[in-house]
Amino acid sequence: MIKIVIDMMGGDLGSAAAVEGVLAFLKDHRDVEVTAVGKIEELTLLQGKATLVDAREVLPMEAGVMDAIRAKGASMAIAIDQVLAQNADALVSSGSTGAYLGSTSIRLKKLPGVLRPALISPFPTKNLGQQVVILDIGASNENSASELVQFALMGKLYAQAVLEVKEPRVYLLSNGSEPEKGSPESKDAYQLLAGSFPGFMGNIEARDALNGTADVVVTDGFTGNVFLKSCEGVAKMMSGFIKGAFMRNIFSKIGYLLSKKGFKRMSEAMNYKNYGGAMFLGLSKVAVKAHGSSDGLAFMHALRVAYRLAQANVPALIEKGIKENAPLS
Amino acid sequence: MIKIVIDMMGGDLGSAAAVEGVLAFLKDHRDVEVTAVGKIEELTLLQGKATLVDAREVLPMEAGVMDAIRAKGASMAIAIDQVLAQNADALVSSGSTGAYLGSTSIRLKKLPGVLRPALISPFPTKNLGQQVVILDIGASNENSASELVQFALMGKLYAQAVLEVKEPRVYLLSNGSEPEKGSPESKDAYQLLAGSFPGFMGNIEARDALNGTADVVVTDGFTGNVFLKSCEGVAKMMSGFIKGAFMRNIFSKIGYLLSKKGFKRMSEAMNYKNYGGAMFLGLSKVAVKAHGSSDGLAFMHALRVAYRLAQANVPALIEKGIKENAPLS
Repeated sequence: MIKIVIDMMGGDLGSAAAVEGVLAFLKDHRDVEVTAVGKIEELTLLQGKATLVDAREVLPMEAGVMDAIRAKGASMAIAIDQVLAQNADALVSSGSTGAYLGSTSIRLKKLPGVLRPALISPFPTKNLGQQVVILDIGASNENSASELVQFALMGKLYAQAVLEVKEPRVYLLSNGSEPEKGSPESKDAYQLLAGSFPGFMGNIEARDALNGTADVVVTDGFTGNVFLKSCEGVAKMMSGFIKGAFMRNIFSKIGYLLSKKGFKRMSEAMNYKNYGGAMFLGLSKVAVKAHGSSDGLAFMHALRVAYRLAQANVPALIEKGIKENAPLS
Repeated sequence: MIKIVIDMMGGDLGSAAAVEGVLAFLKDHRDVEVTAVGKIEELTLLQGKATLVDAREVLPMEAGVMDAIRAKGASMAIAIDQVLAQNADALVSSGSTGAYLGSTSIRLKKLPGVLRPALISPFPTKNLGQQVVILDIGASNENSASELVQFALMGKLYAQAVLEVKEPRVYLLSNGSEPEKGSPESKDAYQLLAGSFPGFMGNIEARDALNGTADVVVTDGFTGNVFLKSCEGVAKMMSGFIKGAFMRNIFSKIGYLLSKKGFKRMSEAMNYKNYGGAMFLGLSKVAVKAHGSSDGLAFMHALRVAYRLAQANVPALIEKGIKENAPLS
């Protein structure tokens, strides 16, 4: 039986979206005990299906680490209490990222041997249906070569458990594909990984990260964050252009009607709500950070990812992997 | 009279594309003396319109700095010889980026006071027709805070001369908009710029860099290169999706015919060929690096950018600006 605790508040759409996501998730997952933390009067639809725990406060989206630590009555803090009290497997929240990263890393503890946890997120690739995971996308600002080596391991285990790729192809994000390219830290990480890390394929440029070549792309948190947000920015700009192209006149609007099926598939592929949010790897528990504006669908996917990571027991695999690869780091 | 020297070879499409570009450029630019360097028998269409200088060798695209230095008979080297011999204003080439950056920085010399030259490139924004320039996109791998401060100045002068923005809004690329966000170097640069650099607006996240808020975005070469290539990767992926959506069936193909005008405007906006390539700022001469696969149109735009930078005498403005702002760096 897998135990998942959910912070039902803190997201932009309030607890209603979270309730909808939990109900959808429970339809096809029977071997799960869900604990839902939030204003209990808003969770009545979950009665009999989940353990309900009351929390009266909610952290604002701009809350930082210190706010999260102080606000002991907030749904996020009480959800973490529950994970610890029940020794649950996983925590899911759509609240403030800063507060989430701070309070989970302080209270859920790093796994033994982990230098730094990493935020990992799946991205679409040009092959519809195929995903690539990229880490760290912003838990850290800088990362050492040894940390990058651990990220390679964590990303690989994630890809195996969640993307179901047997032998993930792992790359370092760089400004060229040659071994001598990259930041000083990534060049050192290359030396540590080459020849000793099964699945390590070398450097990859940002332009090729989404072309289906890689299953895992490793980078420091600052660069990963820039990568994530560049992708978001261009996707948003191009979506605006597409909308503008179709809205030009009556002919282009008919054009949209005739071709919209294909465009719907594209927006599905580009929709972060289908990806389950970001995961914070390297902690003793599975920790999923759903997007702040998660709707029911996004919550359901976040729960599925938490479930898969817990079922595969990825935290234990990370601990074991880091112990075995200790000389690497 | 402005003197521009052009390396006619080295691009993927050979000298024919360069010849086409020069002819198109000369149609509406009379106050220019063009020197075209390449296999003289391939340049006959330019006879009487440009000074022709023979070069028998061409650097391959994968050529590095050392190859460029050794290959004294290559069109790129001879073009640089011509810039020096004529004391010309500008150099344009579509050859290997590594070779170009290396040989121009060694032979054309940095301006007095410039710590490091920077590669700058215009990007489209969501407002069709409006551009933003980003630097450094890959001349360096790491940059100090003082270098970033100089990039802010160079980017601003570029935006004034080429984009014709009177008071450019200059931002530092960061992982958050707050002053305390960013790489260690960019945080220091923030402190140096805030309050003392007219037009400095603070930090900008990668997701907002193309939304029209900024005219100039400053970052270190590694991060800028990742930004550039992330944008390329997502744009390529989405273009593939769009093509796929329209090619699905006969209805979607008709849909394309009805809406293609709007999509053509979008591809125009996204087409690097309309942007004149990247410029290498901080050298004693205007140095434009056209895209390796430049066609006639791309060459023409590269020549226009070189012309504007030379006409505004941007190298002199950079030298003056750096002298005046010396306490900054």
